[in-house]
Amino acid sequence: MTNSPSKLLDNAVYEFSKLPGIGKRTALRLVLHLLRKTEEDVTIFGQSVIDLRKNIKRCKICNNISDTDICNICSTPSRDPSTVCVVENITEVIAVENTAQFHGLYHVLGGLISPMDGIGPADLDFDGLIRRVAEGEIKEIILALSATPEGDTTNFYIYRKLGNLPVIITTLARGVAIGDELEYADQITLGRSITNRIKFEAT
Amino acid sequence: MTNSPSKLLDNAVYEFSKLPGIGKRTALRLVLHLLRKTEEDVTIFGQSVIDLRKNIKRCKICNNISDTDICNICSTPSRDPSTVCVVENITEVIAVENTAQFHGLYHVLGGLISPMDGIGPADLDFDGLIRRVAEGEIKEIILALSATPEGDTTNFYIYRKLGNLPVIITTLARGVAIGDELEYADQITLGRSITNRIKFEAT
Repeated sequence: MTNSPSKLLDNAVYEFSKLPGIGKRTALRLVLHLLRKTEEDVTIFGQSVIDLRKNIKRCKICNNISDTDICNICSTPSRDPSTVCVVENITEVIAVENTAQFHGLYHVLGGLISPMDGIGPADLDFDGLIRRVAEGEIKEIILALSATPEGDTTNFYIYRKLGNLPVIITTLARGVAIGDELEYADQITLGRSITNRIKFEAT
Repeated sequence: MTNSPSKLLDNAVYEFSKLPGIGKRTALRLVLHLLRKTEEDVTIFGQSVIDLRKNIKRCKICNNISDTDICNICSTPSRDPSTVCVVENITEVIAVENTAQFHGLYHVLGGLISPMDGIGPADLDFDGLIRRVAEGEIKEIILALSATPEGDTTNFYIYRKLGNLPVIITTLARGVAIGDELEYADQITLGRSITNRIKFEAT
């Protein structure tokens, strides 16, 4: 016999323990927490992810996840369609949106080129980006990808693909983070922020 | 407008962030992880907790959670019905079972008496325990509750309730944990392990 009194419990714990960063003990704790809730509450919990996966769409313009065919960023008239920020995924869209510094549109690639993980250009939405740029309304593409080898490779790939089109390609400023002590900044970052120094403006 | 592109996403993230120890960021990470799975996988995940909550039962004998009317511990003929270990909840049943040192049955109270949390004797399954003892087959009750004020109160309550019945009441040995250095043991624990010292046996 097993140490667990219930196959139903084992199932639920097993499902939770497949989530990233959730071990067997945490999974059991979470499931026991749900067991103490009402049947209605637990149904709402379970159904929320089922509904999400079943009904979520990809925005036909920017490839971001959306409840509708066109996402609420692409369909906001006040946003500037001439500037497009290229990001890896929805988490980066949320991060940039939270800065409240960007008022253009996005293009979500769905990942970065990473031969090690078997992700090639065909797996990501480059075609959609090129088509959007070819339509001619976009003036600037901001590459907002991670500062990793995969991000650099993807940046370079996009740069080559868009090379013939009349669009300005920019990338995020790299430098010492606000609040960081210079002493502890890594030398590559510090070097870049010296090379790309900007005019001091008293605020 | 909100920073999130999807109400469905917000719903799922909100549901996850209600779980203990899961903040907004972790909830988003878990939900995005599920979004990358197939619709079938996500349905299995969501349904596992819904089914658990809907179909789980309480064992009619020991009050432990169970898929059937009588749990698989109470229904195992090789287990000794004359010794009953009283525990707070299913997690403690699993912990004791994992030691493989106990071959009797359990009684799950469903909590500890805790006036601070509004949990009184009426909220816990003492009646079931008293009824089981009154039936006369049980020779020993092992109180395996936490070494906290709530555990002590509950122990004392059970002791008073069972006082008239012909049953031996024992409790877990308290002492210096195996692997602990004496120097760092707290004085109450060390004091108890001196008072309750046992005969040394060379193994």
